[in-house]
Amino acid sequence: MNTIKLVVIGGGSSYTPELVEGVINNYNTLPVRELIFVDVPMGEEKVRINTQFIKRMIHKAQLNIEVSYTFDRKNALKDADFVMTQLRVGGLKARSKDEHIPLKYNVIGQETTGPGGFAKALRTIPVMMDICKDMEEVCPDAWLINFTNPSGIVTEALNKYTKIKNIGLCNVPIGMHYDIAERLEVDPKEISCNVIGLNHLSFVNKVYYKGDNVISKALEVKKKDGIVQNISKIDVSDFIAQKLGLVLSPYLQYFFFEKEMLEKELQELKDDKGTRADQVQEVEHKLFELYEDESLDHKPEELSKRGGARYSEAAINLINSIYNNVGDIQVVNVMNNGSIADLPDDASVEVNCVINKQGATPVTNGHLPLAVKGLVQHVKAYEQLTVEAAITGDYDTALLALISNPLVHDAEAAKNILDDLLEAHKEYLPQFNK
Amino acid sequence: MNTIKLVVIGGGSSYTPELVEGVINNYNTLPVRELIFVDVPMGEEKVRINTQFIKRMIHKAQLNIEVSYTFDRKNALKDADFVMTQLRVGGLKARSKDEHIPLKYNVIGQETTGPGGFAKALRTIPVMMDICKDMEEVCPDAWLINFTNPSGIVTEALNKYTKIKNIGLCNVPIGMHYDIAERLEVDPKEISCNVIGLNHLSFVNKVYYKGDNVISKALEVKKKDGIVQNISKIDVSDFIAQKLGLVLSPYLQYFFFEKEMLEKELQELKDDKGTRADQVQEVEHKLFELYEDESLDHKPEELSKRGGARYSEAAINLINSIYNNVGDIQVVNVMNNGSIADLPDDASVEVNCVINKQGATPVTNGHLPLAVKGLVQHVKAYEQLTVEAAITGDYDTALLALISNPLVHDAEAAKNILDDLLEAHKEYLPQFNK
Amino acid sequence: MNTIKLVVIGGGSSYTPELVEGVINNYNTLPVRELIFVDVPMGEEKVRINTQFIKRMIHKAQLNIEVSYTFDRKNALKDADFVMTQLRVGGLKARSKDEHIPLKYNVIGQETTGPGGFAKALRTIPVMMDICKDMEEVCPDAWLINFTNPSGIVTEALNKYTKIKNIGLCNVPIGMHYDIAERLEVDPKEISCNVIGLNHLSFVNKVYYKGDNVISKALEVKKKDGIVQNISKIDVSDFIAQKLGLVLSPYLQYFFFEKEMLEKELQELKDDKGTRADQVQEVEHKLFELYEDESLDHKPEELSKRGGARYSEAAINLINSIYNNVGDIQVVNVMNNGSIADLPDDASVEVNCVINKQGATPVTNGHLPLAVKGLVQHVKAYEQLTVEAAITGDYDTALLALISNPLVHDAEAAKNILDDLLEAHKEYLPQFNK
Amino acid sequence: MNTIKLVVIGGGSSYTPELVEGVINNYNTLPVRELIFVDVPMGEEKVRINTQFIKRMIHKAQLNIEVSYTFDRKNALKDADFVMTQLRVGGLKARSKDEHIPLKYNVIGQETTGPGGFAKALRTIPVMMDICKDMEEVCPDAWLINFTNPSGIVTEALNKYTKIKNIGLCNVPIGMHYDIAERLEVDPKEISCNVIGLNHLSFVNKVYYKGDNVISKALEVKKKDGIVQNISKIDVSDFIAQKLGLVLSPYLQYFFFEKEMLEKELQELKDDKGTRADQVQEVEHKLFELYEDESLDHKPEELSKRGGARYSEAAINLINSIYNNVGDIQVVNVMNNGSIADLPDDASVEVNCVINKQGATPVTNGHLPLAVKGLVQHVKAYEQLTVEAAITGDYDTALLALISNPLVHDAEAAKNILDDLLEAHKEYLPQFNK
Repeated sequence: MNTIKLVVIGGGSSYTPELVEGVINNYNTLPVRELIFVDVPMGEEKVRINTQFIKRMIHKAQLNIEVSYTFDRKNALKDADFVMTQLRVGGLKARSKDEHIPLKYNVIGQETTGPGGFAKALRTIPVMMDICKDMEEVCPDAWLINFTNPSGIVTEALNKYTKIKNIGLCNVPIGMHYDIAERLEVDPKEISCNVIGLNHLSFVNKVYYKGDNVISKALEVKKKDGIVQNISKIDVSDFIAQKLGLVLSPYLQYFFFEKEMLEKELQELKDDKGTRADQVQEVEHKLFELYEDESLDHKPEELSKRGGARYSEAAINLINSIYNNVGDIQVVNVMNNGSIADLPDDASVEVNCVINKQGATPVTNGHLPLAVKGLVQHVKAYEQLTVEAAITGDYDTALLALISNPLVHDAEAAKNILDDLLEAHKEYLPQFNK
Repeated sequence: MNTIKLVVIGGGSSYTPELVEGVINNYNTLPVRELIFVDVPMGEEKVRINTQFIKRMIHKAQLNIEVSYTFDRKNALKDADFVMTQLRVGGLKARSKDEHIPLKYNVIGQETTGPGGFAKALRTIPVMMDICKDMEEVCPDAWLINFTNPSGIVTEALNKYTKIKNIGLCNVPIGMHYDIAERLEVDPKEISCNVIGLNHLSFVNKVYYKGDNVISKALEVKKKDGIVQNISKIDVSDFIAQKLGLVLSPYLQYFFFEKEMLEKELQELKDDKGTRADQVQEVEHKLFELYEDESLDHKPEELSKRGGARYSEAAINLINSIYNNVGDIQVVNVMNNGSIADLPDDASVEVNCVINKQGATPVTNGHLPLAVKGLVQHVKAYEQLTVEAAITGDYDTALLALISNPLVHDAEAAKNILDDLLEAHKEYLPQFNK
Repeated sequence: MNTIKLVVIGGGSSYTPELVEGVINNYNTLPVRELIFVDVPMGEEKVRINTQFIKRMIHKAQLNIEVSYTFDRKNALKDADFVMTQLRVGGLKARSKDEHIPLKYNVIGQETTGPGGFAKALRTIPVMMDICKDMEEVCPDAWLINFTNPSGIVTEALNKYTKIKNIGLCNVPIGMHYDIAERLEVDPKEISCNVIGLNHLSFVNKVYYKGDNVISKALEVKKKDGIVQNISKIDVSDFIAQKLGLVLSPYLQYFFFEKEMLEKELQELKDDKGTRADQVQEVEHKLFELYEDESLDHKPEELSKRGGARYSEAAINLINSIYNNVGDIQVVNVMNNGSIADLPDDASVEVNCVINKQGATPVTNGHLPLAVKGLVQHVKAYEQLTVEAAITGDYDTALLALISNPLVHDAEAAKNILDDLLEAHKEYLPQFNK
Repeated sequence: MNTIKLVVIGGGSSYTPELVEGVINNYNTLPVRELIFVDVPMGEEKVRINTQFIKRMIHKAQLNIEVSYTFDRKNALKDADFVMTQLRVGGLKARSKDEHIPLKYNVIGQETTGPGGFAKALRTIPVMMDICKDMEEVCPDAWLINFTNPSGIVTEALNKYTKIKNIGLCNVPIGMHYDIAERLEVDPKEISCNVIGLNHLSFVNKVYYKGDNVISKALEVKKKDGIVQNISKIDVSDFIAQKLGLVLSPYLQYFFFEKEMLEKELQELKDDKGTRADQVQEVEHKLFELYEDESLDHKPEELSKRGGARYSEAAINLINSIYNNVGDIQVVNVMNNGSIADLPDDASVEVNCVINKQGATPVTNGHLPLAVKGLVQHVKAYEQLTVEAAITGDYDTALLALISNPLVHDAEAAKNILDDLLEAHKEYLPQFNK
């Protein structure tokens, strides 16, 4: 590939302009010649607005990139070099259900962990399988870069059930990196971090600055702000992180402070603030109003509230290292293959990998710290059952998956939540309605 | 050893007469010549009453067994063949605290699982280490059969930190065996069961009757009564067991129905019924009144309410197979050594073992069913940290252990519970007060 | 099964009367009602002589067992309870080639190890697969007890490529048991041995007598005679065994004393004594002359020279423990499943197993002694490649298998030997001639 | 460290000028301020000649590097940043014995594999331990870069028995890289290779050129010349490599073509050519004559005959990536830690590693190809026993190590060779003479 054809599935996402900003800024090393946004008819308005806005951005940058949108996925994929998936099956409405239903039973309602992430996996994986089938036909050598949550579970499904080369991506690791640099008051480029764990269940266990491991210094610093927009930081989490000797993904608050997080969610419901999905719908609405403004030709400030900070940076870094065979270290989701001794070889993990033209090769990490090993293994077993349930559409497997989720810890609630989710998302779960 | 010297540490337990009944009934194959009950001065009344009652039992059986009690443990241990430990450091009062303190923070309060079992481990393990030091000096070849809970954690500590030959025992597996026989309406001797998991976190995954695996038949039968006295059965647990394809240890209710179990405990507190420890104190009181009655020379009916059903049968079976080199299969707690592929070699497990003069050799089981693998691994990581905390008396390790317990899922509660437990049990936790 | 239908495939073997002697002597616990000998037309004379002789044996014992022979395997297998395979594809002539061809290239020529065993595996596995296909149709619940060498490789192929319940058997472990009893001058029933390793590459690492591990005593005794007829003992092997702390299978002489064993084989060729196959042909000839004698109605002394000592005992013990659900320990070939930590789960191993109606469950052994671990792993890799080569008929896989055999250590010789073997056994290797 | 103090132990080696050439050429990125050559009095002449010659080289390059030699190792090590060990305990005379003694018993006599490498390990490891003890006192943060053979065994000993940060290095991997580039007729910088295995038992399993794995193209090309000077290539080895799908370390000829290699060695003895050590002594003699020439101020052509091609390049690359925190991939010897699934975590392996200020982190490789897995595991078991023998000086462990070496395959020869080696090297094996 001398120049790049990049296809973005779920092009109607409000994040898309951020991604394109990255494409524009890195045009020298990543010569994109064609950019196609694929979406579903239901989302036409958004993808149309995005496309027009992005054309203005590219025009301003005086670059020669062909931009378009389409509903014809297979045609769009033809001869693609990179395919990015950032789709949301059922849209924010479905997400809202994912968040509300578990709360009915006093269980965490969250888009990526707990029963919410489980439901999202059930809806997403069949669509990802369809995309891969298309790719096998029309662009079998293309790289699939997946952002769709739950990114770790999707990565595992892709690696077990397709042959398409793929890497799962999340903006949390890069967010942790910046957070640690802030704590240490150094340039982010001067530190290197080692990440271990699973997607949205990850830990930094080593931070190197000028050759020394300075993680204990980083852990001494208490920080007010969290790493992601959508999870407000619990003060005592810094204390726990220090005891663990690990910098924590913000999503770990759901596991280490489940009661407090649950209460907060229930309170927000009571206060009529709605769940995160409800709030995001509003933010999105405003963003698209901005994007529609024909005078706008650069990423607006307001996008930063959306929560996907550094999403573009992570994606461009990854594509760049593949395309240019760089061989640097990035944190992505791949099959374990021995990287973490306590997990199966065929489990997806989020770890430091060498990135080059051949893809992502994890480095070795040995055993997890005992204090988080059990939790990670527990969640991984849940994830593996979820992959099986999403592929087979088997009710019992789905039930066992939810029972295995450490945020549920109530087999009866698991059954009730599952039944509600299957009913609520019926139209997006063909595999359960055979 | 031509005849057997048996030393029972914690001889003042109300269970002791049940054990001795087994000794009497099996005298032909297990020729016990001497029986010494060791206890602490605080428990003198109970051990004295037990000893006198037991002398009457043996007199009635016309056997030539020397019976005595003592506080001089080391002297009692001299040249012992079998040492049984059924001690309770701090007595039922300490147990009551183990049950009450977690409930203060809305966390399961239970003697063997959750923070209660954790506290019991911290108190018990140092005493067990002392016993082993004595044994290394005066009876280095004796077998230590441990009943003291949490039996699995104690087994792991013993195997990691002493050289005394030991096996951990629990009456749940034999209880599950009888329960399954009842479901199938067959003689318990006609079935064989395969047990996998950890102590108080165990599963039957195969039931053989006339050569066929009939576990699905056993799972179809709904039973009202639970397996142990102290855990009343939740109806839907049979449904969940069927979905899992596994017969469940009753203690799994704490994990699979945590909310319901917690509510029940909190309700009992409100209703002024006290915790299980409080109730047991009453039962015990009545039992010792009976034992004191000089006309009583056989195990009274009332003992069955105490909860240790088949405890004697399990103990006698085990000692018999060691002493007589039988080579049959029994379910005991031993180091894993590859029996369960998903756990470390040096983790204690509760599995089918070949029992003979050389001890207990686990059979191979391969991988755990995915639906329980994560939970078992999670609890095991907690157990391993608990062993380390109990041995070292390190505060941070203790905190991380509690955070790792899947029944806690709140790091702040973990800290509060730990601080309360360390304060409440101060006198029994010398390792934390160095 | 109330009474037993036993089918012996390869019924024309000179060992068959020994097996039947065991059947007769154990009729009380193993009520065989029908005994069918299956063979190929080429071997009619032998199987006919056997059948007539065996009828006389049974008549003498006054038992009611129906005896017959047939070439119609599938019909014979109908409703069988146990199927024993002791076939020799290509007969002793093929074995002779297995022994001669490697010697041409100065490589050990032996029936079960080295290139000879490799060739036997290539010929045998396809026939075993055919037998299993028949069994799946007409006796899917029967037990297949395989004696055919190389028994470990055949066991692995059966477990990987069929669903028929099967156990691999060899008379070496029982021979080692008797040998150790002789050394200790005790009744074989009084000791128990623990065996680890692979078929024809096995070690006793523990010997218990009255509860104590007495292996070092057993190793101190030097013995003149070996365990199997066909391998004369090398004096210094007792010294090496002592250094290893392990009692050695006689077949280990090929690995630990390769040069001496090879020289001996080459010398015998020079001296015109022929290989073992050539010698056995003579012994067999004489045996069948005896069997034909209508006055003979009991196993003749001469059979003991044939080399299969205690073959009948091992077989009857195994069938008895399955049929009567005994649950004792026997040494058989099964899938590893964690028994030996250094080998894959799906590798066949020869270890202590619990034998009952459900089959053979290996006990756990942890790691192999470092001093033999490498050799065992090396041979296992060769075995796994051999299974693949035998199933697929792929030339390159076969070549890599031979190169991986530690007795070959010459890739060029490997190629030459392979080419000669494929040519010599052409008619028995349809999978290589597709 | 702003500038570098580099200590070379074994500075009298004829390779040293090559290393210094690398230091000179890379002065811009590797600012060496001090260079000390340590040797033993026995080797004074060589180290003196080297030092004087090297001073002339540095003078010519107009660099400000302080150069000296000394016998006072501990003083030299003070505040060192990098310590390179390239020592040869007992000199070439000892090597000559390592090569001759095994040949007496028809076993491969070679400096690094087989009994020769074993003897070298026994002599070298105690000295390496002494060096590390010194380093712990006077430069505990320095990096130890070891070149001394057997480099993999030494690496394992260092990692098991010292805390000094260390990496083992060999010039074979870089040699294979250049060899593959030649086959493909491309610039070595354009390809990347993945290496798996052990030191002197390594394989390239993937070769990437412009993003594609082109190893099969590389394997199609037949090459006349081998990779290292001292092992002349066997023609058919390219055929075998192709069948394996792996590029082979030249040292694998000892394992895949043992007979031919042994015959060649025996023939050279007969022809009075001596062993490699004998030949090298001559080459060395000539080299030092050149070095002594006061007009020589650059590396002479003749050095290339010595066999250590690209030794300097490998060393400088490694030190540079550590010093400058580069994070590129290099092939070095480190502890496995999960990199190769078929080997223990605490086994040294030779694999692709990320090199930066923190040292070398291996990438994950999963399982070895089955066709070489057994051999690698076999050699690794030998290596682990050798480390134990070298540390403990235990005769039996040493004997078992030699018996475990797949190039020996004769336990009696093993004993004879061991006895001869222990006698011949008595003065260098204090651990065996306690």
